[in-house]
Amino acid sequence: MTTLPTLSPILVAEAVRLALAEDLGRAGDITSMATVPADAEASAVIAARKPGTIAGLALAEAAFAALDPTIRFAASVADGDTVPAGATIATIFGSARAILSAERTALNFLGHLSGIATATRAMADVVAHTKARITCTRKTTPGLRALEKYAVRCGGGSNHRYGLDDAILIKDNHVAIVGGVGEAIRRARAATGHLVKVEAEVDTLDQLREALGAGADAVLLDNMAPAMLRQAVAIAGGKAVLEASGGITLETVAAVAETGVDFISSGAITHSAPVLDLGLDFTAA
Amino acid sequence: MTTLPTLSPILVAEAVRLALAEDLGRAGDITSMATVPADAEASAVIAARKPGTIAGLALAEAAFAALDPTIRFAASVADGDTVPAGATIATIFGSARAILSAERTALNFLGHLSGIATATRAMADVVAHTKARITCTRKTTPGLRALEKYAVRCGGGSNHRYGLDDAILIKDNHVAIVGGVGEAIRRARAATGHLVKVEAEVDTLDQLREALGAGADAVLLDNMAPAMLRQAVAIAGGKAVLEASGGITLETVAAVAETGVDFISSGAITHSAPVLDLGLDFTAA
Amino acid sequence: MTTLPTLSPILVAEAVRLALAEDLGRAGDITSMATVPADAEASAVIAARKPGTIAGLALAEAAFAALDPTIRFAASVADGDTVPAGATIATIFGSARAILSAERTALNFLGHLSGIATATRAMADVVAHTKARITCTRKTTPGLRALEKYAVRCGGGSNHRYGLDDAILIKDNHVAIVGGVGEAIRRARAATGHLVKVEAEVDTLDQLREALGAGADAVLLDNMAPAMLRQAVAIAGGKAVLEASGGITLETVAAVAETGVDFISSGAITHSAPVLDLGLDFTAA
Amino acid sequence: MTTLPTLSPILVAEAVRLALAEDLGRAGDITSMATVPADAEASAVIAARKPGTIAGLALAEAAFAALDPTIRFAASVADGDTVPAGATIATIFGSARAILSAERTALNFLGHLSGIATATRAMADVVAHTKARITCTRKTTPGLRALEKYAVRCGGGSNHRYGLDDAILIKDNHVAIVGGVGEAIRRARAATGHLVKVEAEVDTLDQLREALGAGADAVLLDNMAPAMLRQAVAIAGGKAVLEASGGITLETVAAVAETGVDFISSGAITHSAPVLDLGLDFTAA
Amino acid sequence: MTTLPTLSPILVAEAVRLALAEDLGRAGDITSMATVPADAEASAVIAARKPGTIAGLALAEAAFAALDPTIRFAASVADGDTVPAGATIATIFGSARAILSAERTALNFLGHLSGIATATRAMADVVAHTKARITCTRKTTPGLRALEKYAVRCGGGSNHRYGLDDAILIKDNHVAIVGGVGEAIRRARAATGHLVKVEAEVDTLDQLREALGAGADAVLLDNMAPAMLRQAVAIAGGKAVLEASGGITLETVAAVAETGVDFISSGAITHSAPVLDLGLDFTAA
Amino acid sequence: MTTLPTLSPILVAEAVRLALAEDLGRAGDITSMATVPADAEASAVIAARKPGTIAGLALAEAAFAALDPTIRFAASVADGDTVPAGATIATIFGSARAILSAERTALNFLGHLSGIATATRAMADVVAHTKARITCTRKTTPGLRALEKYAVRCGGGSNHRYGLDDAILIKDNHVAIVGGVGEAIRRARAATGHLVKVEAEVDTLDQLREALGAGADAVLLDNMAPAMLRQAVAIAGGKAVLEASGGITLETVAAVAETGVDFISSGAITHSAPVLDLGLDFTAA
Repeated sequence: MTTLPTLSPILVAEAVRLALAEDLGRAGDITSMATVPADAEASAVIAARKPGTIAGLALAEAAFAALDPTIRFAASVADGDTVPAGATIATIFGSARAILSAERTALNFLGHLSGIATATRAMADVVAHTKARITCTRKTTPGLRALEKYAVRCGGGSNHRYGLDDAILIKDNHVAIVGGVGEAIRRARAATGHLVKVEAEVDTLDQLREALGAGADAVLLDNMAPAMLRQAVAIAGGKAVLEASGGITLETVAAVAETGVDFISSGAITHSAPVLDLGLDFTAA
Repeated sequence: MTTLPTLSPILVAEAVRLALAEDLGRAGDITSMATVPADAEASAVIAARKPGTIAGLALAEAAFAALDPTIRFAASVADGDTVPAGATIATIFGSARAILSAERTALNFLGHLSGIATATRAMADVVAHTKARITCTRKTTPGLRALEKYAVRCGGGSNHRYGLDDAILIKDNHVAIVGGVGEAIRRARAATGHLVKVEAEVDTLDQLREALGAGADAVLLDNMAPAMLRQAVAIAGGKAVLEASGGITLETVAAVAETGVDFISSGAITHSAPVLDLGLDFTAA
Repeated sequence: MTTLPTLSPILVAEAVRLALAEDLGRAGDITSMATVPADAEASAVIAARKPGTIAGLALAEAAFAALDPTIRFAASVADGDTVPAGATIATIFGSARAILSAERTALNFLGHLSGIATATRAMADVVAHTKARITCTRKTTPGLRALEKYAVRCGGGSNHRYGLDDAILIKDNHVAIVGGVGEAIRRARAATGHLVKVEAEVDTLDQLREALGAGADAVLLDNMAPAMLRQAVAIAGGKAVLEASGGITLETVAAVAETGVDFISSGAITHSAPVLDLGLDFTAA
Repeated sequence: MTTLPTLSPILVAEAVRLALAEDLGRAGDITSMATVPADAEASAVIAARKPGTIAGLALAEAAFAALDPTIRFAASVADGDTVPAGATIATIFGSARAILSAERTALNFLGHLSGIATATRAMADVVAHTKARITCTRKTTPGLRALEKYAVRCGGGSNHRYGLDDAILIKDNHVAIVGGVGEAIRRARAATGHLVKVEAEVDTLDQLREALGAGADAVLLDNMAPAMLRQAVAIAGGKAVLEASGGITLETVAAVAETGVDFISSGAITHSAPVLDLGLDFTAA
Repeated sequence: MTTLPTLSPILVAEAVRLALAEDLGRAGDITSMATVPADAEASAVIAARKPGTIAGLALAEAAFAALDPTIRFAASVADGDTVPAGATIATIFGSARAILSAERTALNFLGHLSGIATATRAMADVVAHTKARITCTRKTTPGLRALEKYAVRCGGGSNHRYGLDDAILIKDNHVAIVGGVGEAIRRARAATGHLVKVEAEVDTLDQLREALGAGADAVLLDNMAPAMLRQAVAIAGGKAVLEASGGITLETVAAVAETGVDFISSGAITHSAPVLDLGLDFTAA
Repeated sequence: MTTLPTLSPILVAEAVRLALAEDLGRAGDITSMATVPADAEASAVIAARKPGTIAGLALAEAAFAALDPTIRFAASVADGDTVPAGATIATIFGSARAILSAERTALNFLGHLSGIATATRAMADVVAHTKARITCTRKTTPGLRALEKYAVRCGGGSNHRYGLDDAILIKDNHVAIVGGVGEAIRRARAATGHLVKVEAEVDTLDQLREALGAGADAVLLDNMAPAMLRQAVAIAGGKAVLEASGGITLETVAAVAETGVDFISSGAITHSAPVLDLGLDFTAA
């Protein structure tokens, strides 16, 4: 069974409501109200102007439905699909005013999330010959984290923790205060429940040994060169999940993946992915 | 007088509240609570890892203050300043737990908005020898439009409309339904108040003449090459503000600006600007 | 084409939700729950007790639907229609409890907004022989601005800006700080985008000349007598939109309109319009 | 002890937040940001342009404080005070931008609520020689009920129920469904708690007797002429509170009060009270 | 006519939305998404594991509908029904994922409210041979008061006031400040509207006489033994509603009820009622 | 270092705001406003009427501060402390009205959460001679989960997952659909990130072996008798965390703990804990 990523309908409804409220403001779509008859209907198509991996169709559909529940929205692809330039993503039929008023909100969601999925897919493809998986970070756009993490899954990536509260990640600043990574791990273990994993960031192989000795579930290897990562993999010997992190790019990711680490995390796939270029065009009725 | 861009304190408080709630989740920062004593204090510095233009200091400050109002946050630069790699952006002193818990939220805002300011600044610098100004679009991240438009101003750009409700922008799809750009402009004029400007998108010089004849305040020249833009400038003769739009990049923007248009709009400065790389480091107390 | 004013469905839903929550409180409609069987159905009619112009039918309909989506609400008139005393506005059929529980919320919206439309219509009719149009102000009821501005349109009025953010309006207090209306206009032009209009308030004809010289899009002529307004119209010569303002009443508005100004603004149409008297009566099933 | 009416600080904060958000929109006060230096300070005074009774000072103060907590706001009068034209209501000192940005929100609250207090005061004064008190209804502006009821108290009025949930009021439509006012009262008594009062609307003296017989705490005498009201007072003999209602105006209210009823309710004092004319003027620093 | 207790659909929708958001968090039901195919359907039954009185079916139904509006939810009993252990409460058919994701939210509402109804029912049954009715207090779970008071009605209890605002209840601390219960009652009468009842708490029979003399609608007899309650009933002679309060349990309530008081209030039925044990089981399709 | 449990200030502020809004309603504390002078001050003490473990002091403090930020609140104990009957929990000094208005909200939070802490502490003490720890479930009161889980920690318990999204818990209904616990675990592992733990519920020892073979991090042993639990501990041999669950009470928990399981989960500590009886009394100033 392939488990397709899905989004909670409650999350979708709330995100779309906020975005439409932001775009419609107090007076609404004054251009369409002034120029388009209330009963005009139209057909439109959303197409990809560039190749990419799609994410966010449910948000686009919900944006149109919020303005007119009778609009017919038919997706031509599914979230997670990779499409060529020119591909039709969805067709839409219904109130011309509603389509025009929801267009930008729908495209902003779909373009932003597909941009993240596309960037993730690119990295995932480059490491497909290894066991390493691409994972995201908490370096996301404020307010959109759950959607962006969903887009990472659509692009073939794996999700890191969603917030400060669902897993322990001991970072250099914590270690500096506590005085040692091992002690920090022990404190974390003692203070948290049995369904919380503990990961620790290390800069050196000695720290890695200390983390493994303290029973870390996962270790984040920060800014290590491939040779050092290989040593880390050997030292860990499968006793903890290993995550490589730190300025890894599409150019360098394959070499990192080939060291045998389990995960490679990238902030860039969420915080710096360019939008996927999409357009909505009216078609002859 | 130089009018520095400013942000409404109400907007800042709400954005920060939502972002912190997203990151803290239900259980809060379980790592810092487990490892850092409640009364530990720390000094930290936010520094730029790459050169760029800063935007969003008020959000960073508010993020720390939301977790502990006694934290001291001292900005070393102002929004709109362009800084070199390594520059100190702000220094922070106070509760170590609060600094660690707010760190990512503060940096996500500051990095995202500074990324937009930096991309805008780059384009604005390239056209500084012309009268053309860089302006943004509604291609923004859902939920963050007001903040992103502020970042555009910090980068030396000018703001396009904020939503569907504060100005008329007649686009190709409206024209298609109405049957002509001139008629669409007339309908818009008749339907809206005297403090609403009317801009129309045109693809051809004939459409431009029609829009000018109908009294458009501004005309968006869509996807025209520099030679055609020059003709458009001559035809308009100052009767309307001219905005060039459509796939303009850092490489092509100077040639566009030199045609004599008033504004050049770019979706990329908001939807595809990479984050400005920033870090927070603890310093010796 | 007559463009009927419309209201965003998102705005309607949110306003009705808040109003129903306010009226139902924690315990709900305890009278109807105690006295009316849950399965009782009823027919009712909303009628005008006085003549007036209708605005807000969508809100009334949404109030009933929020309590029972199966209620049938049939409007007999449209927003913007002027009706005689006794006219049927809408008929309703469905759950008696739901009709009784939503009645006051529906009538409060419909009466308040129709009151504003009626007051606007009265002024608009008096100046119909001139080119002047009645426009509103920001003197609205807190929380209801978008709805009240919609009601102004239903009454044949035009909308002034919706808030502090969608147009520049330089008032006497700004001028006092800046030191001159011309300089204030120049600062505003420099600081804002190309889709923002600039209006300035003036008290004298010299200030008017200064504002015109600085390129104001519109000038608000504050508290000027008709003779002085006539001079202002002559001075402006069509170079800026002219708005007369200041204590203008139904008795004085015609004389003001006949001076040739473009707009006459009135706070009273929103902040002091008496409600239109409406009633809901049960009819024989 | 005179118990001054007071407002919950939580209610004030929420109402002001919503109103400022409505006025500031996405971009904020673009006029003041463009024309007034960020560090400019100003003194201002709020004065009454017409005589009236004041209500809502806490909201005005909170509006300024929300934009700059360091603003000094000194009220010259108290809510409930009746002032002559020209009276100073409050003086303000602080950030010029903040004063300008909050001015309209502050005045909209203060003018609207003082208008209601003034209308209530006028009616209350006319009946001061009787035992009758003026009371309000649920015919309030959606979203502002608690504030408007507070303004009624400031004007010397008494409050009717706040919503559908805090008292039973059996109206003609309930009676029509139940088949009799007595039976409706009995059902209400049986279904509700011991701290809920039961009032019933009656059109005839027979209905009054039925209501009294069923134990109503209060009876609303709908649209009865003074002579009939006098009979009702005699019939009731103090066994229930009597409320006269139905189109009572400033001209007719004294005659109604002199019949001996306990309360006279008026929708007009909340739904149709003109605003109290107030202005904010900058003063020499 | 038996008036069944009902819940406002607006209240139900909001409570369910908050509870689902709390349970689904940012990532949603990751277990069901990972293990259950998106198109799998299931049948399930909610059954009582212990005997009890049911309350909250509308919330359970709404929880499933919020995740998938096509789910069929058929209640086998009604709110207020008392059922034996093993009784089927409702059957459900539809998307397996949606049923699993909403299960805990539905059961948490249904179990909590049925627990309150069951505890209330138990007390109500013990006093059924007297005229005394069981009533609740404001000792409810923060955020759930309206729902918990509804559950009390489902269990055969009566509702005390819903908040600080819908009735006067003068307690010992008020009396201590005012200096006497009679004076406190007079102040309350003077300050509040005619639809607000006044109840006062008394510790002694002298205070009771003082409260009756001042015209209290109801008197709360605090911590009085049955013999003293009997005297209180005699003294009051029907002039005020009498409520016994203070540590009354299932063991002692009958003796209290037999003294002739009208109401017996219990905090325990809301703040300490154990949940009614319910389970959801999948059944063979 | 003992890490005291802490609560996010954002969570506290929001919970208190909602609870106060619920209690104050539209009209506020009408009893205190009517009877207590606005400038009266008072001293009060919160005391435990029964022995118990305290949780929620920050919420009580915030409730008073929300009504008057100048109130002085001094806690005499800390969250997590176990106190005898009669112990002073906190002393309060300030506005008498504010203290009276916030009293019930403060006590409702403190009593509810201390009730949970007390129930947890009781179970934790009984198993203190074993390595087993008491843990909670998702059987919490809707809207209060984060607070209730905090109270469990205050009582010496450990926290299970906070929602459907922060850990995998495969239950019998999932297994029924998938066809086997091992396959369900494999699907879960494949679909979720490296910081998500996987727990599976089993009813038999064969299922336990299957779960261990599939690599479960934790196994929930549902409704097993102590003898069977002992076998399960032997089979697991430390390869997974073992959690005993199902109807375990204060009477049976020691026997369960002595089997060697790691965690014992109890729904009753959150869903059925009686409130800790607390009172607020005014003291002589």
